[in-house]
Amino acid sequence: MGATEPQWVLMATGRSPTNIAVIKYWGKRDEALILPVNDSISVTLDPDHLSATTTVAASPSFPSDRMWLNGKEIALSGGRFQSCLREIRKRARDVEDEKKGIKIKKEDWEKLHVHIASYNNFPTAAGLASSAAGLACLVFTLGKLMNVNEDYGELSSIARQGSGSACRSIYGGFVKWCMGKNDDGSDSMAVQLVDESHWDDLVIIIAVVSSKQKETSSTSGMRDTVETSPLLQYRAQTVVPSRILKMEDAIKNRDFESFARLTCADSNQFHAVCLDTSPPIFYMNDTSHRIISLVEKWNHSEGTPQVAYTFDAGPNAVLIARNRKTATLLLQRLLYTFPPQENDLDSYMLGDKSILSDAGLQSIADVEALPAPPEMKAPNQKFKGDVSYFICSRPGAGPKVLTDESHALIDSATGLAKGV
Amino acid sequence: MGATEPQWVLMATGRSPTNIAVIKYWGKRDEALILPVNDSISVTLDPDHLSATTTVAASPSFPSDRMWLNGKEIALSGGRFQSCLREIRKRARDVEDEKKGIKIKKEDWEKLHVHIASYNNFPTAAGLASSAAGLACLVFTLGKLMNVNEDYGELSSIARQGSGSACRSIYGGFVKWCMGKNDDGSDSMAVQLVDESHWDDLVIIIAVVSSKQKETSSTSGMRDTVETSPLLQYRAQTVVPSRILKMEDAIKNRDFESFARLTCADSNQFHAVCLDTSPPIFYMNDTSHRIISLVEKWNHSEGTPQVAYTFDAGPNAVLIARNRKTATLLLQRLLYTFPPQENDLDSYMLGDKSILSDAGLQSIADVEALPAPPEMKAPNQKFKGDVSYFICSRPGAGPKVLTDESHALIDSATGLAKGV
Repeated sequence: MGATEPQWVLMATGRSPTNIAVIKYWGKRDEALILPVNDSISVTLDPDHLSATTTVAASPSFPSDRMWLNGKEIALSGGRFQSCLREIRKRARDVEDEKKGIKIKKEDWEKLHVHIASYNNFPTAAGLASSAAGLACLVFTLGKLMNVNEDYGELSSIARQGSGSACRSIYGGFVKWCMGKNDDGSDSMAVQLVDESHWDDLVIIIAVVSSKQKETSSTSGMRDTVETSPLLQYRAQTVVPSRILKMEDAIKNRDFESFARLTCADSNQFHAVCLDTSPPIFYMNDTSHRIISLVEKWNHSEGTPQVAYTFDAGPNAVLIARNRKTATLLLQRLLYTFPPQENDLDSYMLGDKSILSDAGLQSIADVEALPAPPEMKAPNQKFKGDVSYFICSRPGAGPKVLTDESHALIDSATGLAKGV
Repeated sequence: MGATEPQWVLMATGRSPTNIAVIKYWGKRDEALILPVNDSISVTLDPDHLSATTTVAASPSFPSDRMWLNGKEIALSGGRFQSCLREIRKRARDVEDEKKGIKIKKEDWEKLHVHIASYNNFPTAAGLASSAAGLACLVFTLGKLMNVNEDYGELSSIARQGSGSACRSIYGGFVKWCMGKNDDGSDSMAVQLVDESHWDDLVIIIAVVSSKQKETSSTSGMRDTVETSPLLQYRAQTVVPSRILKMEDAIKNRDFESFARLTCADSNQFHAVCLDTSPPIFYMNDTSHRIISLVEKWNHSEGTPQVAYTFDAGPNAVLIARNRKTATLLLQRLLYTFPPQENDLDSYMLGDKSILSDAGLQSIADVEALPAPPEMKAPNQKFKGDVSYFICSRPGAGPKVLTDESHALIDSATGLAKGV
């Protein structure tokens, strides 16, 4: 039995969305178990625009666990993948595929190695929570492969051990990660607040900001903040709990004004505790600041918030518009200030490209003809090249199984990642 | 009696330094009296490099109070100047100048108008606490003119009502502004911790950073922070009091390591509460962040801090080097990363220019020949034009009277600002 002539290969393929926190997770109370210092709340993004697709395969012919990310094999030595694998294997049950003549008993899973192939439909390095989507997808898909019976809360708790924010990608819509109280982390898991149909007016535009700086990883950044910021514990213990309650109400009532104020304030406070870290951590740059200014000025001129902004551990802006009309007005402002470097509008707007025509922007000439937004004080300030591209999305659904074999990222004949 | 043919003019001229806080003042508990939410500590800068010079004149021929700043007449309607004028007038005493045949009785001062001319020996718009130097100088010089008998603590309390941080410019060396407890502000005043000779190894290099953004004034900025930042009160009530005690010890013991850690941490926390404000306030820009990175990397590579940084309400960096040798090594690093836009080193270094030759930098060719600092990861990153110029200074003395009439900014014959 050689690798070139495998016995049966059993596979499952799943797709999981990424998510963006509107009340931020920053700081662990337990590094190994990934237990946070406060609750957090996120919105799941439409997997058509930002998601991970993962195929997991098991075969008696695999001599070891292997993984491919975006077509390149990567080491599986990291504790994060191992934790998820171990926890799912523990819960594996009997599997029988009569058509293929495969019969795996519960206890056999401990001896079977897996191959994992994962692919993000958005740039991994763009700082858009690719690990959240990826780890959630791994746990979800492994669970399917191994016929795990656990509910989504339990799966989210396993995904959490791979990457904290991954636990929130187990559901669609708006999701709360309850920090939990138990030392073993058993009650630190995500719950769905509302599904993606509850507030489907919202439009999400992401500005992927060009950056020359190497950024601090969120893992080491939050460790440094916990160890050195005098403000973090106050944020976690006093500020966040009341924000969580208000945010839950805002989401339940589709109260955009409260939602936007809380989202912006909490993003800014997360970056404030990063700055309060020794040495200080800067994730936002001048372009991020300009996008905030643009939104704040417009919101102020309208008297009530039209758009919320939030920034994760990087300079990219995630902008949440109250509805599609507002999103088109936002897009006009963004493209006025940040015109594309290349004369190509199509590659400057990813995701739901139809927002461009809704905003009356069919060509570069339309962008160049945009009038200065009336609320702008210095109308000739343009920053070509400071935004790499935009992605238009919306709140979306949770993980799902892809049954169509054409979506599989592993070749069932060889057991290896396709196209490698 | 016309303005062209004055009666006697009585004048006094004084010079006051600016100061830079190492434990920051941000937030008032009383807007009108300018009472702060926490104590602060500053270092006074050498007035040869950064100071205000002010001449105040009184004459029965002046029909109203008038003021000139850097040669341009400005309105005196603002409450800040008026508060200082009123408080000093209240304390005025009999003055007699036998040579000029002038005799002013205590009660006459209420009826005498004053002319004020003030000049900063550094750019007013550069965000280098010009109002602190200016208001301290006004109070100090008016006090001399009107023969006020109050001690420096009392004068600092009056200067505070003109511009909060001005109270700290009444002394040289290291100065603490005690927030006080009384509602009327009578105990909110500055005290000298040590004079400028106590720690005279320190060298201060200021990087004046080019900025296109209009900045939020510190007056409105700190009001917004008090009203909207959930973190500010915690900082003021819990974090700062313990830092004040530690900073006093560090200064007393010339413990540079503790001094540097506290200075950097408190600057960063001040900017953190600005970011925690709604809408957020950004005073530092990408260049400020790069300067912090440069210093942090160097300090880290040396194992112990060589340089402290602190930023006020703007992007300029104030860098405090532990001694002159360290300052030359710092300067080499700064000029390597931020070479001058124009090929003119002389106009790129103001203040104590001798630091250039101490650093072996006599010409642009010397700057271009600088090797990359060994601790730098990306040695080819240079940012020409991002720093407008540097100022080299040191801890300096408090206000003094300039008796030489040639320093007077008002013409004793006309009673008007010279050269207008």
